[in-house]
Amino acid sequence: MKILVIGAAGMIGQRLVRRIAEDGTLGGRPVERMVLADAVEPPIPSGWENRTEAHVIDIAAPSASEPFAQGWPDIVFHLAAVVSGEAEADFEKGYSVNLDGTRALFEAIRAENKRSGHKPRVVFASSIAVYGAPFPTRIPDDFALTPLTSYGTQKAICELLLADYTRRGFLDGIGIRLPTICIRPGLPNKAASGFFSNILREPLKGEPAVLPVPDDVRHFFASPRAAVEFFLHAATMDLDAVGPRRNLAMPGLSATVAEEIEALERVGGKAASALIRREPDETIMRIVAGWAPDVEGARARGLGFEADASFDEIIRAHLDDEGAGN
Amino acid sequence: MKILVIGAAGMIGQRLVRRIAEDGTLGGRPVERMVLADAVEPPIPSGWENRTEAHVIDIAAPSASEPFAQGWPDIVFHLAAVVSGEAEADFEKGYSVNLDGTRALFEAIRAENKRSGHKPRVVFASSIAVYGAPFPTRIPDDFALTPLTSYGTQKAICELLLADYTRRGFLDGIGIRLPTICIRPGLPNKAASGFFSNILREPLKGEPAVLPVPDDVRHFFASPRAAVEFFLHAATMDLDAVGPRRNLAMPGLSATVAEEIEALERVGGKAASALIRREPDETIMRIVAGWAPDVEGARARGLGFEADASFDEIIRAHLDDEGAGN
Repeated sequence: MKILVIGAAGMIGQRLVRRIAEDGTLGGRPVERMVLADAVEPPIPSGWENRTEAHVIDIAAPSASEPFAQGWPDIVFHLAAVVSGEAEADFEKGYSVNLDGTRALFEAIRAENKRSGHKPRVVFASSIAVYGAPFPTRIPDDFALTPLTSYGTQKAICELLLADYTRRGFLDGIGIRLPTICIRPGLPNKAASGFFSNILREPLKGEPAVLPVPDDVRHFFASPRAAVEFFLHAATMDLDAVGPRRNLAMPGLSATVAEEIEALERVGGKAASALIRREPDETIMRIVAGWAPDVEGARARGLGFEADASFDEIIRAHLDDEGAGN
Repeated sequence: MKILVIGAAGMIGQRLVRRIAEDGTLGGRPVERMVLADAVEPPIPSGWENRTEAHVIDIAAPSASEPFAQGWPDIVFHLAAVVSGEAEADFEKGYSVNLDGTRALFEAIRAENKRSGHKPRVVFASSIAVYGAPFPTRIPDDFALTPLTSYGTQKAICELLLADYTRRGFLDGIGIRLPTICIRPGLPNKAASGFFSNILREPLKGEPAVLPVPDDVRHFFASPRAAVEFFLHAATMDLDAVGPRRNLAMPGLSATVAEEIEALERVGGKAASALIRREPDETIMRIVAGWAPDVEGARARGLGFEADASFDEIIRAHLDDEGAGN
């Protein structure tokens, strides 16, 4: 089978590609070929040089799908997006990439479906940014999407398109609404959600980290490992069982900052948690207050998606993936 | 003040325009000028010939907003749409008119906002087609939008755009999610929902009508009069009280077909209800099973929107508006 990953240079995209390359199969079927695309050159996994194409594309450009148009893949993973902060700062770029780029991809698939009848599975990366406060304690599967960012709006619109293109028979879509990814590897960044990762990742390296919100702030998480598993499961599950509501809130781990820090102490000791400096930031507090504290994800659980068991497990997986010294 | 009505030749659009022309004011402010637009020539209300422009536009064309670009109105009523059946039959036309046309309108307003700071109120006609079964007994305000038609998908997407353009300060939007309009005047049409009106309108004229579903089918209605009141209230209410969730499910009347027929008997006698012929139609039954039986509309009620009191009232208003002999 042939697989296309759009957004293959991103943090989750790279992990997904490496995992498929290692497995060599997907849902029991051998993977013959991978096509990788992103706004920057996506890395090709070692040993796959002869079976992988890597394309630098502007997903918002009319010609974006041209590299895929000869022999469409069986499965399309679509993870490409301008992130939340950038979509808020640059209104036009956010709509162009996150909405128009996705719609152009779906339209290219529809054109091919019309031509040849080919109907690929499309796994779309959505986000809990589709929710906007006020929330119930746990957001149920049938809760309204009332995003409070342009990024969340764009993801919610693409979910609607995915469901309609699926219903019309142009593609076989499955949208997965990802929790906040934690622990993000790499350096601290200025994303408002960055501190959820920083306060674990940095102390584990012996570095200080800043906590800008109170310890009782609750949010909803998935590890990079769990996210990769979500994509693999979405690519191989029986979609007939999903029905017309093709966008699933993924199960995740709801935890307070205090619970994160307790897990850090259990894994890294008091020396680690002592590296966290509390510096309340009103702006970040206000932003975080609009975010989902907990999402039920009951349908996704019933369909075989699995959440991380605990923050201890998330931290150990991070150390395992990123190296002990990291 | 200056008012723009897009979709001014439609059934509700015409009534809204006539009502504003009769009142001469909106929210206590005198209306100086009306700009009417539709895909066909919109009628100009009598006495308003010198204060009204009528434009035939293709809302999906890039130049659609040009007639409005000299001196934007204070209030934009946007009712233009390809209807449900046509949007399902012609995928491209539905997306072009209902999604791209609406987005182009919002973009033209954003461009003017950027240029001059002008920020009109935009009243957007949405529909209960944004809901898709399965439903709770009464659909609450925070229920997920999972449309089962392309029309419903397009309306749901435009709701999301309206909320985001409002949040970003480009326009002051309010979306009103209309129940099924009943009694629709005119001749019986082939819309799947047509029978809800046909079984009242035709017997009131002494004509037979076909009922294709069982008497216990429940659906959710507003009269043309109530719909016009929704638009007027949306155009004049305090929008600061609405908050960021700018799309409101309108209150309506939930009733079974049996309840419709009982009201018909009370107003028109047994001779009227005897004109209804029961001819079950599996296709229509299946379509109608996906439609909302009842919508709470609690937020809208709290904000001053009012539902029809009873089907008796709906029938009497119809006779009043359309003439006794009709």
